[in-house]
Amino acid sequence: MDVGAINCLSYEDFVSVFGNVVERCPIIPAAVWSQRPFPSVAALQAAIFDFIDALPESGKEGILRCHPDLAGKELRGGTLTRESREEQGAAGLDRMDAAEVSRMASLNAQYKERFGFPFVICARASDKAAIAEQMCERLRNAHAQERSRAVEEVKKICRLRLQGLVLTNQINKL
Amino acid sequence: MDVGAINCLSYEDFVSVFGNVVERCPIIPAAVWSQRPFPSVAALQAAIFDFIDALPESGKEGILRCHPDLAGKELRGGTLTRESREEQGAAGLDRMDAAEVSRMASLNAQYKERFGFPFVICARASDKAAIAEQMCERLRNAHAQERSRAVEEVKKICRLRLQGLVLTNQINKL
Repeated sequence: MDVGAINCLSYEDFVSVFGNVVERCPIIPAAVWSQRPFPSVAALQAAIFDFIDALPESGKEGILRCHPDLAGKELRGGTLTRESREEQGAAGLDRMDAAEVSRMASLNAQYKERFGFPFVICARASDKAAIAEQMCERLRNAHAQERSRAVEEVKKICRLRLQGLVLTNQINKL
Repeated sequence: MDVGAINCLSYEDFVSVFGNVVERCPIIPAAVWSQRPFPSVAALQAAIFDFIDALPESGKEGILRCHPDLAGKELRGGTLTRESREEQGAAGLDRMDAAEVSRMASLNAQYKERFGFPFVICARASDKAAIAEQMCERLRNAHAQERSRAVEEVKKICRLRLQGLVLTNQINKL
């Protein structure tokens, strides 16, 4: 799907295609649709990032709280969004032994207790060992510093999800 | 569920309970959770409304675009959220004859073409005849006037959903 095709989408189709580029926040693509035509896919991405950056800090934390735990009950219960399931799988979080699951649960709990939002990381750009290491490190951050760090991860995830959508649609056209 | 119980919820339980008080916008309750403890349920509602009011106009339109069509393909396809299904049912939108369905589809299409977001109305406070009449009337509004009118309807819907949640949980406790 090139930017010309994106610009032709009705808001309903646009929200249907891009509704989960930020996890469980269809309001974000639904809001930026007003800015079409986008000169490029990069411009669409920039519009999404600008919308996120313009939110009050509570709104940024709201975005984070729409994310599932890594290797948490939604992975076990099969209720993750398709995108999260693929990302957690790519990092090996669906193939952990009992000790690894227990350590991740303990780190998740510490993190949420400390910050009031879940640990968010671009799992596709990482793996289960590196994720646990990052959690330990980021647990030491100050609250505002960590919120801003986590929002950067939301953007990395969004970038890869957008790329995936644009590529998949190109392949489907071949 | 009284406000004391609400204030004790973890953000995960809070988003799970209040995640759809604004249709498909869990980011909104997820954001206001930071403001607990709420002195009353009315204060929780006010925090949600304040968050909506503080959004840029594009964000308000984003909220509207997360709403389904009235008597549209999501009602027919069974993919509405539980709340929307109950509301559309309460207004009789699931019991229309072919002529009524066709008229509603035509009005929906005109409205979306004109404003770039779907017609939103508090269906519980209305019925199918009054809804069609309102659509005809509101189609004549200027864009900014209609956006603001539609956001008022989002708030009416939110108020009734909140009341429903608080009451249901009280009944469950009896």
